[in-house]
Amino acid sequence: MEVDKALNESRASDATRTARGSGIATFMGLPHTTTLTGVDAVVVGVPSDSGGTPGSSRGPRALRDVSALLRPANASQGIAPFSILNVVDYGDLTVIPGSLQRTYEEIERGLDGILAQDVVPLLMGGDHSITLPHLRAVAAHHGPVALLLFDAHSDTYDVYYGSERYNSGTMFRRAVEEGLVDVAHSIMVGLRGAVYQPSDYDDARALGYEVLTMDDVVALGFDQTVDRIRSRVGAAPVFLSWDVDALDPGQAPATGTLEIGGFSTREMLGVIRALEGLAYTGFDVVEVNPAFDGIRQTAAAGATMIFEFLTLLALRRSQVR
Amino acid sequence: MEVDKALNESRASDATRTARGSGIATFMGLPHTTTLTGVDAVVVGVPSDSGGTPGSSRGPRALRDVSALLRPANASQGIAPFSILNVVDYGDLTVIPGSLQRTYEEIERGLDGILAQDVVPLLMGGDHSITLPHLRAVAAHHGPVALLLFDAHSDTYDVYYGSERYNSGTMFRRAVEEGLVDVAHSIMVGLRGAVYQPSDYDDARALGYEVLTMDDVVALGFDQTVDRIRSRVGAAPVFLSWDVDALDPGQAPATGTLEIGGFSTREMLGVIRALEGLAYTGFDVVEVNPAFDGIRQTAAAGATMIFEFLTLLALRRSQVR
Amino acid sequence: MEVDKALNESRASDATRTARGSGIATFMGLPHTTTLTGVDAVVVGVPSDSGGTPGSSRGPRALRDVSALLRPANASQGIAPFSILNVVDYGDLTVIPGSLQRTYEEIERGLDGILAQDVVPLLMGGDHSITLPHLRAVAAHHGPVALLLFDAHSDTYDVYYGSERYNSGTMFRRAVEEGLVDVAHSIMVGLRGAVYQPSDYDDARALGYEVLTMDDVVALGFDQTVDRIRSRVGAAPVFLSWDVDALDPGQAPATGTLEIGGFSTREMLGVIRALEGLAYTGFDVVEVNPAFDGIRQTAAAGATMIFEFLTLLALRRSQVR
Amino acid sequence: MEVDKALNESRASDATRTARGSGIATFMGLPHTTTLTGVDAVVVGVPSDSGGTPGSSRGPRALRDVSALLRPANASQGIAPFSILNVVDYGDLTVIPGSLQRTYEEIERGLDGILAQDVVPLLMGGDHSITLPHLRAVAAHHGPVALLLFDAHSDTYDVYYGSERYNSGTMFRRAVEEGLVDVAHSIMVGLRGAVYQPSDYDDARALGYEVLTMDDVVALGFDQTVDRIRSRVGAAPVFLSWDVDALDPGQAPATGTLEIGGFSTREMLGVIRALEGLAYTGFDVVEVNPAFDGIRQTAAAGATMIFEFLTLLALRRSQVR
Amino acid sequence: MEVDKALNESRASDATRTARGSGIATFMGLPHTTTLTGVDAVVVGVPSDSGGTPGSSRGPRALRDVSALLRPANASQGIAPFSILNVVDYGDLTVIPGSLQRTYEEIERGLDGILAQDVVPLLMGGDHSITLPHLRAVAAHHGPVALLLFDAHSDTYDVYYGSERYNSGTMFRRAVEEGLVDVAHSIMVGLRGAVYQPSDYDDARALGYEVLTMDDVVALGFDQTVDRIRSRVGAAPVFLSWDVDALDPGQAPATGTLEIGGFSTREMLGVIRALEGLAYTGFDVVEVNPAFDGIRQTAAAGATMIFEFLTLLALRRSQVR
Amino acid sequence: MEVDKALNESRASDATRTARGSGIATFMGLPHTTTLTGVDAVVVGVPSDSGGTPGSSRGPRALRDVSALLRPANASQGIAPFSILNVVDYGDLTVIPGSLQRTYEEIERGLDGILAQDVVPLLMGGDHSITLPHLRAVAAHHGPVALLLFDAHSDTYDVYYGSERYNSGTMFRRAVEEGLVDVAHSIMVGLRGAVYQPSDYDDARALGYEVLTMDDVVALGFDQTVDRIRSRVGAAPVFLSWDVDALDPGQAPATGTLEIGGFSTREMLGVIRALEGLAYTGFDVVEVNPAFDGIRQTAAAGATMIFEFLTLLALRRSQVR
Repeated sequence: MEVDKALNESRASDATRTARGSGIATFMGLPHTTTLTGVDAVVVGVPSDSGGTPGSSRGPRALRDVSALLRPANASQGIAPFSILNVVDYGDLTVIPGSLQRTYEEIERGLDGILAQDVVPLLMGGDHSITLPHLRAVAAHHGPVALLLFDAHSDTYDVYYGSERYNSGTMFRRAVEEGLVDVAHSIMVGLRGAVYQPSDYDDARALGYEVLTMDDVVALGFDQTVDRIRSRVGAAPVFLSWDVDALDPGQAPATGTLEIGGFSTREMLGVIRALEGLAYTGFDVVEVNPAFDGIRQTAAAGATMIFEFLTLLALRRSQVR
Repeated sequence: MEVDKALNESRASDATRTARGSGIATFMGLPHTTTLTGVDAVVVGVPSDSGGTPGSSRGPRALRDVSALLRPANASQGIAPFSILNVVDYGDLTVIPGSLQRTYEEIERGLDGILAQDVVPLLMGGDHSITLPHLRAVAAHHGPVALLLFDAHSDTYDVYYGSERYNSGTMFRRAVEEGLVDVAHSIMVGLRGAVYQPSDYDDARALGYEVLTMDDVVALGFDQTVDRIRSRVGAAPVFLSWDVDALDPGQAPATGTLEIGGFSTREMLGVIRALEGLAYTGFDVVEVNPAFDGIRQTAAAGATMIFEFLTLLALRRSQVR
Repeated sequence: MEVDKALNESRASDATRTARGSGIATFMGLPHTTTLTGVDAVVVGVPSDSGGTPGSSRGPRALRDVSALLRPANASQGIAPFSILNVVDYGDLTVIPGSLQRTYEEIERGLDGILAQDVVPLLMGGDHSITLPHLRAVAAHHGPVALLLFDAHSDTYDVYYGSERYNSGTMFRRAVEEGLVDVAHSIMVGLRGAVYQPSDYDDARALGYEVLTMDDVVALGFDQTVDRIRSRVGAAPVFLSWDVDALDPGQAPATGTLEIGGFSTREMLGVIRALEGLAYTGFDVVEVNPAFDGIRQTAAAGATMIFEFLTLLALRRSQVR
Repeated sequence: MEVDKALNESRASDATRTARGSGIATFMGLPHTTTLTGVDAVVVGVPSDSGGTPGSSRGPRALRDVSALLRPANASQGIAPFSILNVVDYGDLTVIPGSLQRTYEEIERGLDGILAQDVVPLLMGGDHSITLPHLRAVAAHHGPVALLLFDAHSDTYDVYYGSERYNSGTMFRRAVEEGLVDVAHSIMVGLRGAVYQPSDYDDARALGYEVLTMDDVVALGFDQTVDRIRSRVGAAPVFLSWDVDALDPGQAPATGTLEIGGFSTREMLGVIRALEGLAYTGFDVVEVNPAFDGIRQTAAAGATMIFEFLTLLALRRSQVR
Repeated sequence: MEVDKALNESRASDATRTARGSGIATFMGLPHTTTLTGVDAVVVGVPSDSGGTPGSSRGPRALRDVSALLRPANASQGIAPFSILNVVDYGDLTVIPGSLQRTYEEIERGLDGILAQDVVPLLMGGDHSITLPHLRAVAAHHGPVALLLFDAHSDTYDVYYGSERYNSGTMFRRAVEEGLVDVAHSIMVGLRGAVYQPSDYDDARALGYEVLTMDDVVALGFDQTVDRIRSRVGAAPVFLSWDVDALDPGQAPATGTLEIGGFSTREMLGVIRALEGLAYTGFDVVEVNPAFDGIRQTAAAGATMIFEFLTLLALRRSQVR
Repeated sequence: MEVDKALNESRASDATRTARGSGIATFMGLPHTTTLTGVDAVVVGVPSDSGGTPGSSRGPRALRDVSALLRPANASQGIAPFSILNVVDYGDLTVIPGSLQRTYEEIERGLDGILAQDVVPLLMGGDHSITLPHLRAVAAHHGPVALLLFDAHSDTYDVYYGSERYNSGTMFRRAVEEGLVDVAHSIMVGLRGAVYQPSDYDDARALGYEVLTMDDVVALGFDQTVDRIRSRVGAAPVFLSWDVDALDPGQAPATGTLEIGGFSTREMLGVIRALEGLAYTGFDVVEVNPAFDGIRQTAAAGATMIFEFLTLLALRRSQVR
């Protein structure tokens, strides 16, 4: 089924016709299809928590459900992204609870099919360990990519629990080892919280990443933070990985590893919107754990970020064309 | 799209292939389509709370989400309903928040399209006021139907708030007035709780309904309760309306009007399973209000009842064929 | 202000005129006044948790708020209690957080003013320790009364924490020592749960109380349980103290001391309704702790019991007149 | 009953005499009366959600309950408002669930009685649609008023769901059409979030409103924002409508339409306090939906704002006298 | 450190000396030690959810925390178990998130050390998959044991997700294949809920297990159910595995797989208490998922069962001596 | 048992060996012992709410449980505190619910034993009233100490409820009267919210305290706030009392007295970290009320502050040596 842009746009604005939150819960009411002819980007779920936070497997459904609150245009950026991009909800990739290895294989296979059609994937996790197969798939199509990470943690440990090499605390070390990231253009933003050794962030730097801790961000201010990111990433193809714990727990409580003192949503929106124009090749929003989400405010923040990412993609597309 | 029974069955048992709760949230993972060729029954949402309990509009999505817990076979009844029935998730009917009249028109129009294809609808509310247009549509196709109501309340008041004739406290009086129910074969089961006048239940009886209060059910016992229902309904085409407040708040807390002392889920399952063989023409499950549902236990009870109703339909179909 | 019975009844049925739960939250919408001319019974709050469960001080407001769900007639008992009794919401008695002794003095003084006008008080706790000053006040007016206790615990320990004599674990020993109860007509029903010594219940019996543990109730059955209570209490003036933990936590989770295996609400309603005709002189509903009450199902159970107690009082009044 | 100022003040400071949160839940423990002789302002509830967010009908009771946390003096403004103003809790206006038109008529009639006695109403919603009849009543007494709106949304759409003209998304267009607002002195502050068209805010401007989006507020800073508001409103009689979603969901999660990136409570307090001296004629606090309010932090924010509004009124009164 | 029985008993009754719930949270305040000289039984946690329900890893801490509600004597059984048994809290066994195989090895090694000292382990899960290594360790010391399972599910599937052989849905097939259970004396009680095939329970029977579905239990009654269990188990060494989903979700909502229509806590207590005198060699309480446990009622039920199991052990010990 | 520093450090970083949150819940997994040879500081609970917020008695267990999220090093301060300090979890002091006087005596006796061994106590409350006996014990060993208070309230009232002198609203007046604080070096930071009289803060100043209201802090900025604190405290021995309501309810909702407009966690971390080098003699973290803590974000903030305080102590120790 080829998706019609006009239909697409109208589907995402149901509240003018029926109650908000009506109908099968796809992301923003987008069509659900795995046929990608004419499609520019897909929202796709990966309901896996085998590599980290138990319960984050329920993230994709929560993000879809709460996305009914979103209207289809972005006034801050002055654009209606669905008038520029054809976007569909691809559904969820297969995951194998209890076998991270098989889950990785399924994710890589699933994304390969999407990327082969020149479609940009926006993944909804799941725990953060799913970013490794995502990077593998993206790197297979685009070569090594600049990692732009918003996160409270660097996730560059070597092993956990003595010898476990694959989980949500190690994947950005694995990504370097596997040659998936263009580390010279990669940057980690917002790191904070208690660590294992005072030198933990130096370990990330030793891998080649630039690191802006939350202390750095506050010291620099947000405008300069944006400048630092833009100058680091440059024109490289960029992969934006967004862990919801980059936000402060006061605004995004429903996640596995609470670290106080994070970005406010307003600060985050400002930074993300200012990062328009980069050569985005993939996105993910991870670690939303709806079990603890009260009125679903964390999922609302996560869903809004996906919308902002779609806007970035639309802006870039309208500039490049 | 014609739905294939084998596919149908496999779709409803995803947990053998990927994580439970994966994918777009349709009821039990059934295909989502509005094309009804070859379809026997549809699960369809009506996310309206304009006639009663605020928040019950979110019921259909909650029921769909939690239905991922259900496996596809019914051991107690010895049947795999999806091997007998083609069932799809039709999505939600259009509703107009703030205008119950327009909502009623949309529901009637929507159901007319379904019933015209000889498909049995299972409605997920929404507040209980949606049963009136449901009855109108069913009566238009089948003539007056026997109402089999499980509820804590008779909902046979004349008006609320001075002059309001259409809402979730009046529809079973309206249904008689409009000639929609075959009242001589109709029965209300489980009524209880504080009332406006000690004679309130007599008003329901005066309309022609048989009434079994919860006190009556306890005095009769459950086997005799089933006998009374079967003998009342007989061979008439029957419409089963199931308000989740028929259950005790201890097991189904998430509803608008808590009345202690209701059916336990085990008692309810026993009664419903024993009611196999009746000529069912329509079902609804109403008044699930997920805002208050903690671990979603009320929605789980509601979703299980939908599954049991599908089983009743499959049993009947296998007997009649 | 003298309260008019007709007004009284109409106030308690607001849902025929405006939305349920409208207006200042008095119990069932009853008039709030401390002028008792012509009044038969008062509902009165005691927001004290100084003698036990932290948070139960918020019980009275929760019971008032949720009582908006109750309609004014009792179909099971065939009576509209407010057509027989003038009832008002007296508000709350003064309590002194941190000083149980001063709180006791305030409760005794407050109740003395009510009882002096021949008005029956229905207390809403608060923790169970408030029953001691309640008994003191009632005994001062009526002489020693038969205690009819529904509770998971006997609360007949001598001291807690080495030397503390006044709290929610000791008051029914104090009540005997102070000569407040007619112990030969007193009975404790529903005791259960882990205890300090296997002989704990024998200690209550040694004080003169009859004890029916939950094991006893189940073994006897509910009809015989009622017979045992009626024959124990006889014609004595009776004080009914109802701790919400008499109910099972599945139906009344919001209380301080969870003991699984209690009365279901249906069983409790059956027993309470069967106890009509006794010479009631006072009631309390205690240990509702709304902090943990989700959709307020525990408060709903508690508020319903108050309504049932009012019904008992109305039945008795209509019989004695 | 004439309300005595000294009594009034003491009623609002119960915690010096008994436990906080004791007694019938009126706003801040103020006297509950509908007799307005000598009264300067009333707090009045409108428990209606027929025009928008299901569940916001429970807002007034939540605001009253949580207001027990408030003490009676405002140190930041250096004033004890109840020493200057006589304030009472008027209770709730009649509402008709399911009929917004009848609800509007009841609100207009109810407020007319209050305004006729030169009393300033502070409304507690309910959903935001109740502001339209509030404006009608105020405009009938004062002529068109300057609207000072704090909100995430402009609520100036023409219709919803095809043809619905009255609901919580359209009332500020209706208000202009009906001539209720002095649009040249009116201003909307804090608009943000995804919209239907990138030009949505221009539609509000086209109606004559000044619009400060949240982006604008951040760019201007809070001091200049205050200046812009003061210079826009000038000496006109002003109506302050405060939607709790003006606040960030991190601090006020319990509302119907979560929009991340809003005012912090500290920023809001700063702006509101700086707006002293305007000619206030009416206030409302709307869209508090306690179903999702955890520890009631949203209601606490809402109740505090009512207290700040009372302070503004007291300051104005003390200046004008 | 050798544990002194008198000390042991006093530690478990702290509420006579300080506030309940004081101190480091061990199970019922028992001493925490891994030195087992003179110890009869240990409570030991296995915080693993790698084989099933995400979040059940937090079960052991929840069970310990809520166990503060339990007093040290069992009046129903007429025994104070800690006067007969020396019991300690052993802490938690090592688990390896993400590697079920390594977790199994750690559990087997840990339990081997306990069983080697002739100490009976009571495991607190964790998801149900931990019962397999528990059975391995017990069988290594006692030979094949009779499995007495209370559960809503048979957990006898061959594989999940295509080829996964070890998880919480397969372990009782693995246990037979590995020769760990004396299947001729083994019995599964309480099975219910939707299944994959109508013949699912026959698969369990084909492995040799006796199966009493919940339908069977209700049909037999509880006394006969006990008789069937006792005659099946006989004098064989018995391993009692207790999945909290054997209870109804109304009383134990906090678990991964809600199945309505289960045992009430009162029925369960009755059955468990009647099973005194069997030759118990190990126990577990699994699938408590505190994320969803509100006031912790599910954990309270689980902790009470552990106490009842300790009582069974004490009774047996007092009989055998 | 003497605690070994290396062991100590490893115990606090369990996540490298087993799952986070494993084992008996001590603070950060520190050893639990009351033997203090070689110990520098203890974390100790005081589960008392007899002087204030009901439910805060459960604070210590919540803080311990959630502290499993903390890793052992502080990158912002560049130090691993457990490599410098020997710290243990002392367990809880005895408290006597219902008797604040006996509770005070127990706290003083318990702390005397700790301080006598030159160990710095970090108390976890409990309500704020426990700070008075803490100050008594500290002053007995160190003489009057500078009070550094972060709080929304001054807690310097004379009496509550007519005549109650000891509770969580009066202790900092009592502390001056008893000569426990070096008032000339004492300072209160962050006061805000509605008060009883506009002059309330002047009363605190009249006792000798310097007062920085939240308005003052915002006006000064955080750098200057730190300067003011440092210059006030100087070289005096300092007692840091930290009430969680110093934080904004958006980030720390679970406390008894919600006051909007407080410190963000980021601001608080900045201020606390900048206060390194003072002569700390004692700390407390009070008023965490886990009943309302959702995902435990308030407890997470509180536990992080304890970690930051340990860091301050380690920094001071490393500087002074």
